[in-house]
Amino acid sequence: MTISPFDHPYLSGLLGDEEVASLFSAAAELEAMLAFEVALAKAQAAEGIVPHEAARAIAEAARRFSPDVASLRQATARDGVVVPDLVRQLRAAVGEVHGKHVHVGATSQDVIDSGLMLRLARVLPIVGDRLAALDRHLGGLAAQFGSRPLMGRTRMQAAIPITAADRISAWRSPLQRQADRLKALEQGGLAVQFGGAAGTLERLGDKAAAVRAALAGELGLADAPQWHAQRDRIMEFAGLMAAVTGSLGKAGQDIALMADRGGEIALAGGGGSSAMPHKQNPVAAEVLVTLARFNAAQLGGLAQAAVHEQERSGAAWTLEWLILPQMVVACGAALRLAGELFSSIERIGADSPASHNP
Amino acid sequence: MTISPFDHPYLSGLLGDEEVASLFSAAAELEAMLAFEVALAKAQAAEGIVPHEAARAIAEAARRFSPDVASLRQATARDGVVVPDLVRQLRAAVGEVHGKHVHVGATSQDVIDSGLMLRLARVLPIVGDRLAALDRHLGGLAAQFGSRPLMGRTRMQAAIPITAADRISAWRSPLQRQADRLKALEQGGLAVQFGGAAGTLERLGDKAAAVRAALAGELGLADAPQWHAQRDRIMEFAGLMAAVTGSLGKAGQDIALMADRGGEIALAGGGGSSAMPHKQNPVAAEVLVTLARFNAAQLGGLAQAAVHEQERSGAAWTLEWLILPQMVVACGAALRLAGELFSSIERIGADSPASHNP
Amino acid sequence: MTISPFDHPYLSGLLGDEEVASLFSAAAELEAMLAFEVALAKAQAAEGIVPHEAARAIAEAARRFSPDVASLRQATARDGVVVPDLVRQLRAAVGEVHGKHVHVGATSQDVIDSGLMLRLARVLPIVGDRLAALDRHLGGLAAQFGSRPLMGRTRMQAAIPITAADRISAWRSPLQRQADRLKALEQGGLAVQFGGAAGTLERLGDKAAAVRAALAGELGLADAPQWHAQRDRIMEFAGLMAAVTGSLGKAGQDIALMADRGGEIALAGGGGSSAMPHKQNPVAAEVLVTLARFNAAQLGGLAQAAVHEQERSGAAWTLEWLILPQMVVACGAALRLAGELFSSIERIGADSPASHNP
Amino acid sequence: MTISPFDHPYLSGLLGDEEVASLFSAAAELEAMLAFEVALAKAQAAEGIVPHEAARAIAEAARRFSPDVASLRQATARDGVVVPDLVRQLRAAVGEVHGKHVHVGATSQDVIDSGLMLRLARVLPIVGDRLAALDRHLGGLAAQFGSRPLMGRTRMQAAIPITAADRISAWRSPLQRQADRLKALEQGGLAVQFGGAAGTLERLGDKAAAVRAALAGELGLADAPQWHAQRDRIMEFAGLMAAVTGSLGKAGQDIALMADRGGEIALAGGGGSSAMPHKQNPVAAEVLVTLARFNAAQLGGLAQAAVHEQERSGAAWTLEWLILPQMVVACGAALRLAGELFSSIERIGADSPASHNP
Repeated sequence: MTISPFDHPYLSGLLGDEEVASLFSAAAELEAMLAFEVALAKAQAAEGIVPHEAARAIAEAARRFSPDVASLRQATARDGVVVPDLVRQLRAAVGEVHGKHVHVGATSQDVIDSGLMLRLARVLPIVGDRLAALDRHLGGLAAQFGSRPLMGRTRMQAAIPITAADRISAWRSPLQRQADRLKALEQGGLAVQFGGAAGTLERLGDKAAAVRAALAGELGLADAPQWHAQRDRIMEFAGLMAAVTGSLGKAGQDIALMADRGGEIALAGGGGSSAMPHKQNPVAAEVLVTLARFNAAQLGGLAQAAVHEQERSGAAWTLEWLILPQMVVACGAALRLAGELFSSIERIGADSPASHNP
Repeated sequence: MTISPFDHPYLSGLLGDEEVASLFSAAAELEAMLAFEVALAKAQAAEGIVPHEAARAIAEAARRFSPDVASLRQATARDGVVVPDLVRQLRAAVGEVHGKHVHVGATSQDVIDSGLMLRLARVLPIVGDRLAALDRHLGGLAAQFGSRPLMGRTRMQAAIPITAADRISAWRSPLQRQADRLKALEQGGLAVQFGGAAGTLERLGDKAAAVRAALAGELGLADAPQWHAQRDRIMEFAGLMAAVTGSLGKAGQDIALMADRGGEIALAGGGGSSAMPHKQNPVAAEVLVTLARFNAAQLGGLAQAAVHEQERSGAAWTLEWLILPQMVVACGAALRLAGELFSSIERIGADSPASHNP
Repeated sequence: MTISPFDHPYLSGLLGDEEVASLFSAAAELEAMLAFEVALAKAQAAEGIVPHEAARAIAEAARRFSPDVASLRQATARDGVVVPDLVRQLRAAVGEVHGKHVHVGATSQDVIDSGLMLRLARVLPIVGDRLAALDRHLGGLAAQFGSRPLMGRTRMQAAIPITAADRISAWRSPLQRQADRLKALEQGGLAVQFGGAAGTLERLGDKAAAVRAALAGELGLADAPQWHAQRDRIMEFAGLMAAVTGSLGKAGQDIALMADRGGEIALAGGGGSSAMPHKQNPVAAEVLVTLARFNAAQLGGLAQAAVHEQERSGAAWTLEWLILPQMVVACGAALRLAGELFSSIERIGADSPASHNP
Repeated sequence: MTISPFDHPYLSGLLGDEEVASLFSAAAELEAMLAFEVALAKAQAAEGIVPHEAARAIAEAARRFSPDVASLRQATARDGVVVPDLVRQLRAAVGEVHGKHVHVGATSQDVIDSGLMLRLARVLPIVGDRLAALDRHLGGLAAQFGSRPLMGRTRMQAAIPITAADRISAWRSPLQRQADRLKALEQGGLAVQFGGAAGTLERLGDKAAAVRAALAGELGLADAPQWHAQRDRIMEFAGLMAAVTGSLGKAGQDIALMADRGGEIALAGGGGSSAMPHKQNPVAAEVLVTLARFNAAQLGGLAQAAVHEQERSGAAWTLEWLILPQMVVACGAALRLAGELFSSIERIGADSPASHNP
């Protein structure tokens, strides 16, 4: 089934992003959760909590593991989270001797949240690379067409002449700032989540900190105290996704408005109409506006999940599952579409000075 | 791929609703769009605009039609909407003689919006039946347990004793009002959309009204002037979805709070924990809160699409595609979960009068 | 202080609405709350619960009552609601003999919510009258200019010629449907809220229903069982406010886009610029878009308050206070601005047939 | 008038924050705008664009300036922004000789946006100081009560015992991270906005950069190229406000839930009830939840303003005016209430180990 256009057999051609979406598939989540369990066993073996042999057996079983998805589905309906059944299946796959060493001292949220961080960590360079590519492309457009005249418009009315470079700069500068914010996030590192049943790692005693540090190291995540009821990092990440999508929406709106005037921009391609074959619709420009408005609304929804009561809020946590992946894919799709749209610009700005009444 | 939990291989067990979701699959949309084209040809044949033979050929071709989805996807990416390529494929399937009689005088939005109405019309009785079932179930619980004492709580603190019937009534009454709103929507009928390129049905001349009326009749929709840039009906429908989900969220929140106190409610089942096998989590109750908050946020997003500029806003229209199906499925899932949750209530209210300090 | 532009010394000139805003002043709320206490005493006197003399004394004291606002403010900070201190002050004003007959069997939420309904009941005819005036005005514009050509635009691009009447109809039809929804709300009547401490009117015994009916009659509200934890009516009201604002936002966006093209519309007036005295900005048109987007976002926020736990949620209830009055005033301001904007239209549509490249 | 509780004669006692709100009064905005005009003239005098004498006359006139607010209000209604009339009044106050040197090369948005930055710059240390105070207070509570047992609760059900320190840490850690984000914002500096009619400072020629740098220096803001159509900084600021409010909402929700159980927390004070004088309501805790949900929804609304078309969008810009000040005051109020709430904690955690069924 395909309720979300991001996943949809044909709408995903317009609204999806294969590279980013692949990080939010069920397969990618299962892979990340298994990576957590493998890394946990290895970290615990190093601390003498589970036998090294068990850690190896878990790693081996995870490599060969093929989940019973129907069982996972049924169990998720019952438990509210996939992890208990996944752990049960993985233990069975590891076998009787070492199975009990799977998931020692961990809880569902450790697996889900660390698994999410693993995938968000892979989102950052994708977004970073695309921002850099857009920056280069806009730089090229500015170099090529920057001196051309354009009618500056304020409050939807012709104001005074500006140059194409002025308009391009308003698209480019926010992306540069967002690239800086992204780099700061990347350097700080996304934090492992490991806290056990209620955040105290009570089953690991005085080895808790060492295991968590080793686990973080294995996963390539930053080591940090458990944060399972502190969702500010999730919200900050989502804020960046919405900021990027919003800035691209501004560019999209500008280009859609420019495309409606003969002289301001020339775009290659553009979408067809079933009723008017002569039209060339600036589809990508409009969809950038759509995605900006979508992510703005989603950011407001995700922020509701900050009220995460007690040691684990099923209600607030599940709300994130419904919203965050879509926000990230929407940002990815906006970056993809902006790349296509900017690449389709054959000319920006007029040949001659803009007149007041174009 | 499976970015949305509503579509997800295992999360849909918790958050999905198969019956409602099936109306928002790509297959269901294609079926509805083909139904539109078939009905349009039939209506136009009755008015002498296309040959009866062509209408029959189109109906026959639609019955056998198997779309090239890869082509639809590629075309949607280009055109911003699937219809131009779908019409092209359908014309090819109809063949050279009658193919040109497909989609006469129509535009993409006629097909998409009427196709949506066809499916929303099927949502209404599902929601209506489920509301009725919940009402009966709550009525039964009130009859069985209504006189039992319960501590009334205001501002999250024990206030004065009430009865189970009082609490149940606060869950039941809004659903009854929403059932009435739904019936009013159903009786008014969901309106066909048929306007042609820019809403004027300019290609049908003085037969436009008759064709539209016949088309509506064929599809079982209400006849109404084109509304492609007037999205208030969509917003009203979504408002009802959010209202139902919100009222169920209140019940879910109450039950989650009651479940945390031994004596107030007894639930069969409940979810397990990977770290604490002894716990019985009120998963369905929490997810009702999640879905209420989700649909509240989505309603705010959908309402942005009311600003639908000119004769067709690609930006605003596409925003609806991203939000409305999810809202409907979230409402369906909430109704399903509420049914399961209310059915799991084995007792509500205490055995003895609630004391002030429970 | 003036954080909200709706209240602001100068911004309210642009964004406010005096008539509607006056219903949400502190004075108007106090007046409505006093009306509740007076009507309650009268209803209870009729049922022999309080002496007729007390009811008269309460009415008389309410007439003369001048609240100590500093005390109300301090008490609201402590109690989370103004009513306990207001009742205390009113009792003192009534005097020792009859003071104890003030607020019998009622709770804070009865006073606040019924007081709100009293004012929302006064909003409905204002909105209704303004919708009717807009409808007449648009009807007049259609009669005068309807046959003039206009370029139909889809996806922000010239599509095919339409007439001014087509465009005007897209502004007018949703307002007519919203007027119908408003009338339905008005006919159903806004419901009194009267439930006592936890909704059971436990202190009034078998006279509860009669008192509530008499109270509703006194206040001109519909009689209905208490609904203090059922907020669907609030959300429905807000949905209508957002729908009206959204439809006007579409008209505003259209006019702002038309104003940027010489031939499509002629507006009298328009705002000046500090840098470009020659510009005539379509300020009202833009602000209609602003208010539509504002109310869309607020609707999403208000809908969060549907999750109103137990017998009274301080958190959810207070959220309504922060959002609902603004939504109503924003709707009022949009209606006012639309009236001004439509009145300023001196011509709509071109003198000659629209060309494809305007 | 008092539509917003933040400004309200008595509701502001609960929901307002005098210190932060004072930065968003009309008086504070006028003061900031005059400071801009004074600094601009001084910066331009230094560059020889206006006479030093004129700059002194403008500074002197601004000091004595008393605006005609009725005129400002009327003009704002017409122009959509207060600046043209303010400049007109200020020029008149400066007098004929030097009046023409007011606002040279500037536009309304320069004045409004820089005036906003001046006030946001004053918000940062207030928020920073309050975050530091909360951190100290929570540190003290952890030191005093941290080792006491508390029942950890996940999915609203008793899970395993934790300590008070664990719970307090979940409140404190996000505030520390937000203090860091705030410091980064403060160090980067809030940027002056100065671009002229359409962002090009076309009237200042080759002195534009020097004037802008001097203007920034005068105002104590960071120098940066104009950003009037780039709203990412506004959104980032708002994101931080929402993040702080959201984290405090989590603490409020926890405390409201704890207050409903005798042994988990002891609070001094608490609100009274008009129907139940014995109740002690955790009003501040609930209002923290309210403000978190409010700011979450507002963040979603503000993010819509990122789609700021062309060189100035009246629609998007005005949307910020309706939302941003409220978000900042809501954050201020949440910090104030959290301070009061944390100060009212007389004990946190139980005297004896938490039992599984409390």
